[in-house]
Amino acid sequence: MAFGFECLRAFRDELKAKGADIARTAKKVGKDDPRRVIHSLKVGLALTLISLYYYFQPLYDGFGVDAMWAVLTVVLVFEFSVGATIGKLVNRIAATLSAGALSVGVHRLATLSGETGEAILLAFFVFLVGSVVTFTRFYPALKARYDYGLLIFLLTFCMVTVSGYRDDDLFEIAHKRLSTVIIGSFTAVVICVCICPVWIGADLHKSVVNNMEKLGDFLEEFGAEYFATSEDTEQRNDKSRLEGYKSVLNSKTTEENMANLARWEPCHGRFSRQCAYKLDALYCYLSSEIKACIYRIKNEGYLIDQFGADLLTQRPAEIESKIREPCMIICSECGKALKELAGAIRRSNLHSPPVSRIEFSKAAVENLKCTLNSQPLWEDVEDVLDVIPVVAVASQLIGVVSCVEKIAGAVNE
Amino acid sequence: MAFGFECLRAFRDELKAKGADIARTAKKVGKDDPRRVIHSLKVGLALTLISLYYYFQPLYDGFGVDAMWAVLTVVLVFEFSVGATIGKLVNRIAATLSAGALSVGVHRLATLSGETGEAILLAFFVFLVGSVVTFTRFYPALKARYDYGLLIFLLTFCMVTVSGYRDDDLFEIAHKRLSTVIIGSFTAVVICVCICPVWIGADLHKSVVNNMEKLGDFLEEFGAEYFATSEDTEQRNDKSRLEGYKSVLNSKTTEENMANLARWEPCHGRFSRQCAYKLDALYCYLSSEIKACIYRIKNEGYLIDQFGADLLTQRPAEIESKIREPCMIICSECGKALKELAGAIRRSNLHSPPVSRIEFSKAAVENLKCTLNSQPLWEDVEDVLDVIPVVAVASQLIGVVSCVEKIAGAVNE
Repeated sequence: MAFGFECLRAFRDELKAKGADIARTAKKVGKDDPRRVIHSLKVGLALTLISLYYYFQPLYDGFGVDAMWAVLTVVLVFEFSVGATIGKLVNRIAATLSAGALSVGVHRLATLSGETGEAILLAFFVFLVGSVVTFTRFYPALKARYDYGLLIFLLTFCMVTVSGYRDDDLFEIAHKRLSTVIIGSFTAVVICVCICPVWIGADLHKSVVNNMEKLGDFLEEFGAEYFATSEDTEQRNDKSRLEGYKSVLNSKTTEENMANLARWEPCHGRFSRQCAYKLDALYCYLSSEIKACIYRIKNEGYLIDQFGADLLTQRPAEIESKIREPCMIICSECGKALKELAGAIRRSNLHSPPVSRIEFSKAAVENLKCTLNSQPLWEDVEDVLDVIPVVAVASQLIGVVSCVEKIAGAVNE
Repeated sequence: MAFGFECLRAFRDELKAKGADIARTAKKVGKDDPRRVIHSLKVGLALTLISLYYYFQPLYDGFGVDAMWAVLTVVLVFEFSVGATIGKLVNRIAATLSAGALSVGVHRLATLSGETGEAILLAFFVFLVGSVVTFTRFYPALKARYDYGLLIFLLTFCMVTVSGYRDDDLFEIAHKRLSTVIIGSFTAVVICVCICPVWIGADLHKSVVNNMEKLGDFLEEFGAEYFATSEDTEQRNDKSRLEGYKSVLNSKTTEENMANLARWEPCHGRFSRQCAYKLDALYCYLSSEIKACIYRIKNEGYLIDQFGADLLTQRPAEIESKIREPCMIICSECGKALKELAGAIRRSNLHSPPVSRIEFSKAAVENLKCTLNSQPLWEDVEDVLDVIPVVAVASQLIGVVSCVEKIAGAVNE
């Protein structure tokens, strides 16, 4: 008996811990992007609205059981961003229309040839269309934008063709289905666009800005950390900004996806002037430049990973002290220039390039080149292999300056 | 009239060109992976089989219009690989079951409170479940593996709840729907597994091996290209092997996805011994090592991008000629060692590590270190900035050797 209570208590505690864990995750998910909560409520609202078709007698009499397709459409079409929702809407309606037309045609053709012939012919067409459409989904160009449409095309074609074999009022089936799909789609789109819309184009824009800022942070922090004197190192322990570059490197797939979805969105608000395509092109350029910049700095991945004490002590102090100043200037000025550019994009005020910072960096580059080529620098080097990393970083920084200059040019355009 | 013919001819020519283009893409898509053609035929076959339920009277009498759900299930569940299909099957059945149970429960609860009360209560539950499930889909852990299941859960819940308001034989609806979903799912899985199955675990395995081989090729080619004398350069023009590393770097997302799907697959064939999880772990280690290796070499991205003449002439010949030999040895031996390891994994014969090659590379590293530290090397350097890239590459190669050694160790385990 006592053991049973013990077990029960343990179970209760475990359940409590699990519940607390779920609540914590929920809070985090909601806090990371509060629009997620709003989106969830919007989906709930759309579903409730659409189920009203069912509860009210007059509406129900019009569509009957087919009203269910409206519910299905809302669940499948309603996406987080406006771009994704519109993309799915267009895909779904176009696919439903064309598949409906094709299956009506196929059905007409099949009815010309007796009872058995009809079944065989319909089965053959289902096989043919099923195979061809499935194969088409492997086309890379179609997969990126029309995968959902192809799926719905296949689905609608099979369902209408197959059910048409039994029901002879095929036109009515196709018509009812299309109307319910349209009702569902428009309910989803209207709620998605009218209540706190999430524009994926704006998100993409934000992502560029964030990546630039992260890069700027990274540069500043890198300079301060890598070329710090040993007293400095003990004071600074916040390396989170150095981690930022990792998420920038892995953002490629997500961003391509976002750019694909953003094409479905109409131009709106402050983006009306630049068309989505133009933003895309500018964006792609910036993004690749930012990444080139990071790769350039990150040349010794392990240097950054195992950052800090062990490498700092290995580096020969003589050379480092001579090149420290110009390197730190380059890092901090380029970092600040990038952050200013990011701020300019954010405010949509693209006409204040940080010319002075870039000029200042260029002067530091000249200074660095002179120092590296001066004979005394190399006199008391003991192990060349120890010097190479720090000198290589310095030479990379020279490349970074020209890269930042290019980014500034692109932003000005 | 003549103009009309002209237009028609132009249109015909354009259509022809378009058709040829589509055919060419189709051929390419099929050639890249012939299993795609087989997969398409398999989907066609599954759809044809499932539509037989409709054509044969006795089967039709059992399920009626609901047989359509079987068609829908085949279209939605049938995926390219076994892992993905089983994943969707499990998700779909579990979601349908639990959503059906929940909606029956909700319906019972709602009927307790009059006609109007029922509609309000049902609408409220649709809103609640819709919001909560949509929010749950944002959980990163659930999104990776159960996103489809959550979607189907929401779909089934809404459809059964809403249609239950009209039809009172809710149990029969739920039961019919579940049976048709099960029939559809199993048809899809049986055809997917029995006819030329595509195991995603095997694909993942192949992807590791390919990446290792690409890296090996890259190393060999890099050594031959980068440290080539000017006469050599004119002879070799095939740089496609150098491009290989790019696809390796961008493979991360695809591979994570594959690893996720591979977990659904049962252990089979030659993979039965190592469980999928173990393969995953080994794989992740190898993959990150390979990438670290590439980043290490790729330290000057622009060096490789603008590879060739312009950089080769800039490099000071004196230093290069002195370090050329050990560097070329490291590149070719490490490249070959990696390719041998890849071959060993491919043959599932993991017990022949290329020890001699690694030892040979290590000797070359010692040689390189000595050369770099010898005083005469640095005497007649004019511009240090010209020397840094080539010396940095040499120092990176030293890191590559230890990286390849680690990979060999991991493969042996």
